[in-house]
Amino acid sequence: MHKVDLNCDMGESFGLYELGNDEEMMQYITSANIACGFHGGDPHVMRKTVELAKKYDVGIGAHPSFPDLLGFGRRYMTCTPAEVKDYVTYQLGALREFCRTTNVKMQHCKPHGALFMKAMEDKQLARSILEAIHETDQDMIVFALNQSEVYEEAIRMGVPVAKEAYSDREHTESGSIVLTRRGSEINDYEALANRVVRMVKEERVVTYDGKDVSIQAETICIHGDTPGAPALAKAITAALKAGGVEIVPIKTIIK
Amino acid sequence: MHKVDLNCDMGESFGLYELGNDEEMMQYITSANIACGFHGGDPHVMRKTVELAKKYDVGIGAHPSFPDLLGFGRRYMTCTPAEVKDYVTYQLGALREFCRTTNVKMQHCKPHGALFMKAMEDKQLARSILEAIHETDQDMIVFALNQSEVYEEAIRMGVPVAKEAYSDREHTESGSIVLTRRGSEINDYEALANRVVRMVKEERVVTYDGKDVSIQAETICIHGDTPGAPALAKAITAALKAGGVEIVPIKTIIK
Amino acid sequence: MHKVDLNCDMGESFGLYELGNDEEMMQYITSANIACGFHGGDPHVMRKTVELAKKYDVGIGAHPSFPDLLGFGRRYMTCTPAEVKDYVTYQLGALREFCRTTNVKMQHCKPHGALFMKAMEDKQLARSILEAIHETDQDMIVFALNQSEVYEEAIRMGVPVAKEAYSDREHTESGSIVLTRRGSEINDYEALANRVVRMVKEERVVTYDGKDVSIQAETICIHGDTPGAPALAKAITAALKAGGVEIVPIKTIIK
Amino acid sequence: MHKVDLNCDMGESFGLYELGNDEEMMQYITSANIACGFHGGDPHVMRKTVELAKKYDVGIGAHPSFPDLLGFGRRYMTCTPAEVKDYVTYQLGALREFCRTTNVKMQHCKPHGALFMKAMEDKQLARSILEAIHETDQDMIVFALNQSEVYEEAIRMGVPVAKEAYSDREHTESGSIVLTRRGSEINDYEALANRVVRMVKEERVVTYDGKDVSIQAETICIHGDTPGAPALAKAITAALKAGGVEIVPIKTIIK
Repeated sequence: MHKVDLNCDMGESFGLYELGNDEEMMQYITSANIACGFHGGDPHVMRKTVELAKKYDVGIGAHPSFPDLLGFGRRYMTCTPAEVKDYVTYQLGALREFCRTTNVKMQHCKPHGALFMKAMEDKQLARSILEAIHETDQDMIVFALNQSEVYEEAIRMGVPVAKEAYSDREHTESGSIVLTRRGSEINDYEALANRVVRMVKEERVVTYDGKDVSIQAETICIHGDTPGAPALAKAITAALKAGGVEIVPIKTIIK
Repeated sequence: MHKVDLNCDMGESFGLYELGNDEEMMQYITSANIACGFHGGDPHVMRKTVELAKKYDVGIGAHPSFPDLLGFGRRYMTCTPAEVKDYVTYQLGALREFCRTTNVKMQHCKPHGALFMKAMEDKQLARSILEAIHETDQDMIVFALNQSEVYEEAIRMGVPVAKEAYSDREHTESGSIVLTRRGSEINDYEALANRVVRMVKEERVVTYDGKDVSIQAETICIHGDTPGAPALAKAITAALKAGGVEIVPIKTIIK
Repeated sequence: MHKVDLNCDMGESFGLYELGNDEEMMQYITSANIACGFHGGDPHVMRKTVELAKKYDVGIGAHPSFPDLLGFGRRYMTCTPAEVKDYVTYQLGALREFCRTTNVKMQHCKPHGALFMKAMEDKQLARSILEAIHETDQDMIVFALNQSEVYEEAIRMGVPVAKEAYSDREHTESGSIVLTRRGSEINDYEALANRVVRMVKEERVVTYDGKDVSIQAETICIHGDTPGAPALAKAITAALKAGGVEIVPIKTIIK
Repeated sequence: MHKVDLNCDMGESFGLYELGNDEEMMQYITSANIACGFHGGDPHVMRKTVELAKKYDVGIGAHPSFPDLLGFGRRYMTCTPAEVKDYVTYQLGALREFCRTTNVKMQHCKPHGALFMKAMEDKQLARSILEAIHETDQDMIVFALNQSEVYEEAIRMGVPVAKEAYSDREHTESGSIVLTRRGSEINDYEALANRVVRMVKEERVVTYDGKDVSIQAETICIHGDTPGAPALAKAITAALKAGGVEIVPIKTIIK
């Protein structure tokens, strides 16, 4: 039987500023990528989000970023490998402490925004992130795009890695995506949901430029601040169930 | 035989900005209070400082602060109890992760600057800090002034607590200190060292206004950015040894 | 004929985070208090908000704050008078530059949040803010509560000052308000609008504890992030017009 | 007679953190590039530095940066052109306000670190910076490397521009420099000073890889945090005088 994990970025509010539909999304997903204060999130939001994930029995992951609140972590910064490694370690620890105090275990790590996208194509950056993860927690699963440097390096270093595809982004032939969160036209939830089912069951997707290519999706990302995200999540969940795909935590897929 | 721990604030550099004489001071002290990025310190500095403490076999403690880099954590901020608790939890976790990756255990927590001073007299603030400490690590020792709310609450909550006195600050009758890091006239190292010895052996100190009062000193603070701090540390170490006082890690004093 | 200015906090969004109903509110008000990046706002938001105010011919004011984005400027910080003066000068200049490039003149200054509230009762803080304003622009009008230190000092120093009252907060006998932005129950817009009309025409208001007291209102604040703020603004505008009160820029009231 | 301006980065301290030898350097230079709070500097430091420049009759310039205090503005960030323009405008205004209150006029703008270096080769980035400068002050002089995009665009847009060379960096054939502030070996002050004299009088320099090339130097940069910066400044001043070169404010060279 086919299985897949559903993940969503969470806890990206900051102080008085609110973002996303966290509690609604928690009801549909199995993995929450929780912001750690560098691009969004703050200590209070982190505690609440960890408690929310526990309440809905959702796997908790860190969502570390470049230190750029003003740019929401979406701007590449030419940090050194040592800087990146230490930024990720710091953020992992901050979130892990809220997990400790809430009696839950951190499950995975999905880097955020520009850090995520750049690491997919930059071997040194990928390695810096993976070293931070691996040196503090050998069981932690990293999320990576198909055919990416993060995926290749994780395999090489022995870091558990999950292949990720997107419900609300267009893919390229190499399994990458186009980072245009706002520009994306998301209105036909059924079509998007069917695309997800096909990625999981047939391991195929039609790219942004019309090619039908191979893809593997162990976890599917739904962006929580996409307009209508809860409706999209609901449609995906329904389509996966109708298609006989079981929605399960990523730790039951990746060992 | 009398015993005492020597502590010093550490890792307060930030990015390109350097502060303190960390490596020199490590040679004299037994406890390092390491900044966690809110008033000073950054992820890279934290890693280096943890490694330095390990190299010199110095006990590692967190030095959490209000979020105020511009004011170096020396300005009181009217945060809510929940905010303070979450800020401390976040900072404890960030530092703990660098300890995990360096294979050392965090030993203690000494709040920084305005957070430290205000908590000494504000029961609710004291409790917020202690809850953050206690819920994540029941063995962690907190540092507190004599006759303070932090001391009283720690005893009540079962948090291990060490009574602290200062080598380079003037004391009040209640065991408190005056927070004037820059104004202090520190030049007669021998006199300061002898005062430390007397606090440890006789449990007495002459206050800023000339009274001879009782004080208990399980750990003595030396500020690392005090001009001539290494020379002061050297003088204190020599005087303690000459006086037959053993300088030991706080965890061997507080159980 | 009675006259009054209507003011609203504006440009408090930050990066990806959106706050308030700026464009809607601009249609009702005559003075915009624009955040300067210390509690909210950022350079891009500032430019857009200045352009928006110009488009709707709304008077532009600076809305400086303590440096506390995480607390949205609502937490008092024990800054020195020199620090406060320099923080205000910095923020005035940043906003003035966007006014220069947009060819509009800055008209007023209304300090934000904890800086505003504390200055009302702290003469030294009031003076620090007023010095920053007066030394850079002798025509700039400051907003102050009735019977406040800011009002008294402004008169003494020769800084043009406007007495402010609130449409969506409860007043005290001394003309102060209670800073509970979220707690306020705001649903009977007509009642609030009538209270505004009475403050302007009769110079009377019923306080939070039921006393009928004297108050002067040269400018009325409507908070832009109050739920239903545009509807409240619309109700106030209608009630003022019905009551024969002219809504005019503050600079035509204060000379 | 040959003339040249000497410039130095100034006011890069932050809060408790001190950097550079500002008052010493002020005695040798004719233009101060003052940090505006984005990579270093803070409102209090800015006021003090403007007053210091006034005291020594040194021309005041803004030294705007990417928003990256942790990286001291030395990391390139993929900001949009509109973001860069607004960041520069904000910083220009903040510094200009301290100039207004000190009764001095801002003279020039030299972007800092990664913003400076990237703009030299990126036409769009150069244009964003120049638009911010030009739209707020048509007399403001921008500093640019020989053969750079900033120089070319400034000429095209009618922004007054000064060609800059470096006393303590190695040049390339195109007039660019290598950004390795710490790595540079600076000990033979006389040799460096003679190189400056030759750049000014003969318009020639030997590049890092040994070529003798043409260069124009209307202003010479000395980095204030270079070890021994005051001694280097003294040597350069002496050598220029001995060589018959007049050290003058850049505004008397560029009209």
